[in-house]
Amino acid sequence: MLLEELKGVNTFIFDVDGVLTDGSILASDSGEFLRSFNIKDGYALQLAVKRGYLVCVISGGKGSAMQKRFEALSLQEIFLNVSDKVKVYETLLAKYNLNSKKVLYMGDDVPDLKIMAMVGIPTCPADAVADVKAISTYISPFDGGKTAVRDIIEKVMRIQQTWFDENAIASDSGI
Amino acid sequence: MLLEELKGVNTFIFDVDGVLTDGSILASDSGEFLRSFNIKDGYALQLAVKRGYLVCVISGGKGSAMQKRFEALSLQEIFLNVSDKVKVYETLLAKYNLNSKKVLYMGDDVPDLKIMAMVGIPTCPADAVADVKAISTYISPFDGGKTAVRDIIEKVMRIQQTWFDENAIASDSGI
Amino acid sequence: MLLEELKGVNTFIFDVDGVLTDGSILASDSGEFLRSFNIKDGYALQLAVKRGYLVCVISGGKGSAMQKRFEALSLQEIFLNVSDKVKVYETLLAKYNLNSKKVLYMGDDVPDLKIMAMVGIPTCPADAVADVKAISTYISPFDGGKTAVRDIIEKVMRIQQTWFDENAIASDSGI
Amino acid sequence: MLLEELKGVNTFIFDVDGVLTDGSILASDSGEFLRSFNIKDGYALQLAVKRGYLVCVISGGKGSAMQKRFEALSLQEIFLNVSDKVKVYETLLAKYNLNSKKVLYMGDDVPDLKIMAMVGIPTCPADAVADVKAISTYISPFDGGKTAVRDIIEKVMRIQQTWFDENAIASDSGI
Repeated sequence: MLLEELKGVNTFIFDVDGVLTDGSILASDSGEFLRSFNIKDGYALQLAVKRGYLVCVISGGKGSAMQKRFEALSLQEIFLNVSDKVKVYETLLAKYNLNSKKVLYMGDDVPDLKIMAMVGIPTCPADAVADVKAISTYISPFDGGKTAVRDIIEKVMRIQQTWFDENAIASDSGI
Repeated sequence: MLLEELKGVNTFIFDVDGVLTDGSILASDSGEFLRSFNIKDGYALQLAVKRGYLVCVISGGKGSAMQKRFEALSLQEIFLNVSDKVKVYETLLAKYNLNSKKVLYMGDDVPDLKIMAMVGIPTCPADAVADVKAISTYISPFDGGKTAVRDIIEKVMRIQQTWFDENAIASDSGI
Repeated sequence: MLLEELKGVNTFIFDVDGVLTDGSILASDSGEFLRSFNIKDGYALQLAVKRGYLVCVISGGKGSAMQKRFEALSLQEIFLNVSDKVKVYETLLAKYNLNSKKVLYMGDDVPDLKIMAMVGIPTCPADAVADVKAISTYISPFDGGKTAVRDIIEKVMRIQQTWFDENAIASDSGI
Repeated sequence: MLLEELKGVNTFIFDVDGVLTDGSILASDSGEFLRSFNIKDGYALQLAVKRGYLVCVISGGKGSAMQKRFEALSLQEIFLNVSDKVKVYETLLAKYNLNSKKVLYMGDDVPDLKIMAMVGIPTCPADAVADVKAISTYISPFDGGKTAVRDIIEKVMRIQQTWFDENAIASDSGI
């Protein structure tokens, strides 16, 4: 039962491209790849950290733009330029003594399949590939980069009654 | 009655991300966050100023790009890098001796809730979060960054018969 | 009768923002505003010039990016940073001894209304504002920046049997 | 019979603008044109190369951004700034001793028509122009830049049972 499972979540892990973005990367002649993030996702991410959840991103991509964005949101663990996501996950399990049943992951493509088989609550955006959808406990009605991340964080936090933000700051504060 | 309320509006206050933009920010490796604005919104904003309305933006975000865009449109009050929107609103109330009943605000997310409870006419784009929609007097059929701002300004100005522009300049003049 | 009118077209004039673009401008901190153009529009524009049509753009915006894009497509007349489109139109009428009945214009917003009342065939994208749609002879099924320009050029050239391109080059050649 | 034809494919050739992108190019004042690529397309492209398919791109466009993106995906043949695609195709036929029946091409506009008439399996995105659709063996349900390329590569590789990726790396590795 999904709602029961969400009640136990204490850790969020997100893929980046296609989950925190819409999967497009803008290539510049200088060799830079620019990504577009969503402010509503950002509000949920910073609030989850503030409420004590462990929030991590794991991406095969690299670049100081991603690093800066995720640091600005105070995410505890930022893994970029990763070729083996399972290895990173095992590191996280050990470092934080995580209970896999309480870990929620959101991915969208083939490279996410193995780690999704290991976590308690595998989830995906509406526009994930078929193989990812097939093993997801929850498929967000929203696409990657279009508030799929906001949707799942808000759902978990509302069930756990940690969503309400007495002193809500501007969601885009300082960016 | 909405139409009656719109007849009295003399002040517009807009959130930026998700209202004047579609909520996405494009991150570059240099640490810059680029935002995309809508030319049809811009036409309405400059015309409202020209007709004597007080037009303000309040954003938690920062950056000279926003500053330049809003200055080019001659907006009277531009508050960036704001963490407490209510405080800014109280400053505006005092400075301009505003009647809250005549103030229209458009926001899209949790950090807008408090200020929206204080203004006479709280409004939002079609893709605002549920909590914001729930307290809005008017929900635009258009999304943020997709002419939601144009929609509400034009609606107010048509009712007040200040919309017609005898000497319409190019909406994107000088940009 | 629209098809009859299109048979006589020998001049195309296009607004830029909202017609050759989707109306969004990406603001950078350096003060630059970036616009996004459509390659399928570009193919039609360069072919129209090659076939002997007079092709012009008139924009209130400015910037060397637009200038370079339109020069690469060999457009004959490029007017940027324009505040009064009617004056530019009168200059074109005189310079080329144009017959207004043979001039097709595509615009999308209030600043286009006056010039649209002067040309023989006023047209607009699907997402033009209501006032512009109301005076348009033809409303493209496509939005601005989403091949509305391609649509009208191709329609005119097919009727005049000038569309076929024996030696079609890459539509995006040299960009 | 489409499925039979796909069983024999050993070579993929892709147009860039409107196929690997959504057809928009972002113009900057420095004269650069930025293109947006899709990470899900990228995953399929690199996997096809890894499995031994010949994967080529032919574009009329130019720029080091494209060059870098396609090199990062290890594509074997990258032809940019091309005015005559047929000539490039003939070079490829000779260099690799290709059987045209086994060549799949995806294009979207008039400049692709001639080469599409020469390959065994001409295909296109959902938003290709009508003339291209008319001669395509397969029309993807996805638009250019919105996983049309992923769709056709995955379809071919699934039929040939080369799709499964035991050691899937991050689709966006190293970018």
